[in-house]
Amino acid sequence: MGFNILKFIEVKRDGGEHSRSDIEGFVNGLMDGSVKDYQAAAWLMGAFIRGLTMSEMSYLTTALANSGDVFKLPANGFSVDKHSTGGVGDKVTLVLVPLVASLGIPVAKLSGRGLGFTGGTVDKLESIPGMNMHLSIEDFKTQVAQIGCAVSGHSLQLAPAEGKLYHLRDVTSTVPSMGLIATSIVSKKIAGGADGFVFDVKWGRGALMETYDGAVALGRLLVDLSSSLGHPSRAVLTSMEQPLGDWVGNAAEVREALEVLMGEGPSSTREVSLLLAREMVLLARRASSPDEALDMCRRALDGGSALERFAMMVERQGGDPRVTDPSTWDRLLPLAPERAVVIAEEDGFMAGIDTRAIGEALRTLGGGRIRKEDPIDHGVAIKVHCSVGQPVSRGDVLLEILGRTKGAAEEAAATLGGSLVISKEPVDSIPLVGEILYPLERVAKS
Amino acid sequence: MGFNILKFIEVKRDGGEHSRSDIEGFVNGLMDGSVKDYQAAAWLMGAFIRGLTMSEMSYLTTALANSGDVFKLPANGFSVDKHSTGGVGDKVTLVLVPLVASLGIPVAKLSGRGLGFTGGTVDKLESIPGMNMHLSIEDFKTQVAQIGCAVSGHSLQLAPAEGKLYHLRDVTSTVPSMGLIATSIVSKKIAGGADGFVFDVKWGRGALMETYDGAVALGRLLVDLSSSLGHPSRAVLTSMEQPLGDWVGNAAEVREALEVLMGEGPSSTREVSLLLAREMVLLARRASSPDEALDMCRRALDGGSALERFAMMVERQGGDPRVTDPSTWDRLLPLAPERAVVIAEEDGFMAGIDTRAIGEALRTLGGGRIRKEDPIDHGVAIKVHCSVGQPVSRGDVLLEILGRTKGAAEEAAATLGGSLVISKEPVDSIPLVGEILYPLERVAKS
Repeated sequence: MGFNILKFIEVKRDGGEHSRSDIEGFVNGLMDGSVKDYQAAAWLMGAFIRGLTMSEMSYLTTALANSGDVFKLPANGFSVDKHSTGGVGDKVTLVLVPLVASLGIPVAKLSGRGLGFTGGTVDKLESIPGMNMHLSIEDFKTQVAQIGCAVSGHSLQLAPAEGKLYHLRDVTSTVPSMGLIATSIVSKKIAGGADGFVFDVKWGRGALMETYDGAVALGRLLVDLSSSLGHPSRAVLTSMEQPLGDWVGNAAEVREALEVLMGEGPSSTREVSLLLAREMVLLARRASSPDEALDMCRRALDGGSALERFAMMVERQGGDPRVTDPSTWDRLLPLAPERAVVIAEEDGFMAGIDTRAIGEALRTLGGGRIRKEDPIDHGVAIKVHCSVGQPVSRGDVLLEILGRTKGAAEEAAATLGGSLVISKEPVDSIPLVGEILYPLERVAKS
Repeated sequence: MGFNILKFIEVKRDGGEHSRSDIEGFVNGLMDGSVKDYQAAAWLMGAFIRGLTMSEMSYLTTALANSGDVFKLPANGFSVDKHSTGGVGDKVTLVLVPLVASLGIPVAKLSGRGLGFTGGTVDKLESIPGMNMHLSIEDFKTQVAQIGCAVSGHSLQLAPAEGKLYHLRDVTSTVPSMGLIATSIVSKKIAGGADGFVFDVKWGRGALMETYDGAVALGRLLVDLSSSLGHPSRAVLTSMEQPLGDWVGNAAEVREALEVLMGEGPSSTREVSLLLAREMVLLARRASSPDEALDMCRRALDGGSALERFAMMVERQGGDPRVTDPSTWDRLLPLAPERAVVIAEEDGFMAGIDTRAIGEALRTLGGGRIRKEDPIDHGVAIKVHCSVGQPVSRGDVLLEILGRTKGAAEEAAATLGGSLVISKEPVDSIPLVGEILYPLERVAKS
């Protein structure tokens, strides 16, 4: 019996469970065109409403991961990849890659460009003049083998069936389904070739998951799904109730990441980077306890080895390694010249920061793209001077906007003014990180 | 604010209710192409699983009915249309149209061709040589005005948005949704222009609704939806646990219908025809009681006025009116020459007849079409000699198949042999008709 798409849709429509071979038939049909867009769309809505079981997610993830190229690093020790569900001001990858590599754990980071209101790592690194972010797969592998890390965009067809489903979800209001999100993320990670994954699952107004509970549920799924497919993993919950660190914007975020790599920078960015690095080290079994792992990571930042690895990577990819010296930044990582500010109009306490609005404002300033082919202005930036819970006085600068023109900066400031909430009453500050989720087996064993 | 398809899908996905203007936006989008097939498909699956409220069904029905041409008979008294949910051996329209017209109620029947395993009225009437089943709209209206009835295929774009949705439902496993079915049927009826509707809702193995309860629920919806939109209506439940009457096949069904019009023919076909005709007469307020209406209908059959009206219609549409004389049938309504039979292989009682299998077998013999452009063999036929509950003896002829070739007839007989179930124990016979459903107001008033 061949695969029958009508029966397949019917099963999910009526709340049933798919077999492995049916799910393989579906993914094959997506790839060879025998399953039409409207049929996949009807199935997606069925899956959205009825949900997917863990078995279905496993089958679907595997079938999607195998639908195109599967990247393979030469055997070179246990490799770990980090995946963030996306956040505003999230420059952690820039810190983690050289940090973890400096501890002897290979990191091969195939990255996409940013779309939507959060930036992409490729875009951020392209702020550095000369940086080649489109390595050939051969050069990419060689670089990882020689210096332990590489970050590059890629032309591989990783999980193309996932790409098709993702596009359809976007235009059929079936994006925010836990099962479909988890399947989508893990299938791309598996096709990306790493052995283990650390998921940075963000919650809050600027995140995929707006609530903490939602983020826990997604983190749980990501970890269980990965581990059921033989990929050790864990999920770290981090807050996106406000942007991470001080700066949002491509060159500005590279500057901030460099500060962290120098053992300085905002404590929030440092803390999240260290925590994720610690989990990567533990996953790769390079330390015997969390404290030992954390110490190793701290030393890599404070002792300069992470920064040195960053410089090696930049040089190797054609960029100017002197970018690690802040005195070059005005030349190598220039920021946009025109400035506008958002100031507090009353005394009180910061009660809410619309993280997503800040991401959108950066995009409007030219720092992000709406269509895939849009160019990026690396210099525009927004500096966040406030955090939830902090007391503010009338006249304090809350946000600083650096735009290409005075008008654009002022327009952004006007828009963002309305996105900050000041309360008369004291407001609790928001924790930066939440739980760390391990696969269920591991919890059972420990 | 313009219509937003993503928000629209989201509302149904999450179990919400659409406003009238949103539903109008959706149907406009279907027509102008701004709503894509995959978006309509996702919505259909949402509507299938979440259901539609009566208000949503009303808005959707109206919007679909108004999406193209709306047929209007010249004001000429209250017109009534009959709609069958489709059945095997269902030749009732051929009886009803002239019968009701002969009682002074105009019947303008715009019919489609048959697709699937049930035949279409246009195909059946085309068995009669010379019969023009593609009248121009002007000729069609003139004929109804002059002789009170016409049956014709049509080139009107009746409810084209419904056609689009119907096609999509067919390929996305979203057909058997009560709300979508009711909306689809009533929107086409309204675009067809009649004032009142009598729905023949069939239940059983050869019907859209397999269970009696399902048929009641659909009948209820059809009647309430029509009446909420200002169209008086009722639904008669009739059985499709076995084919209606003796014959299945185009020319053979015309012969059987003519027998009924002569006051003869199988009692089941006569009974269902009389019941539906009675309801049409009552709906048109041409009688003051069900008994009076039934008497009028009986007299029209037994006194020859219905047959006479049929002859007028045939002649007017270019066919040979001598077809009402059975001595002409071998020439005017010839049946296929090769015969095969299915005989009882044991003594017992008829326990089950797979009505759908009989419809499919006729199609395989050439009497129905798989693709729209397939030609039809009007002469092939299947005679049903058995009914559920009836005692049978080994060797009894249960089905008689008339095929174009011996091989085809025997192949059909072999296939159908397995579709009949004989039980050792006595089996109850199946009632031919069930409830009659009226709009809720009417029940309240009576």
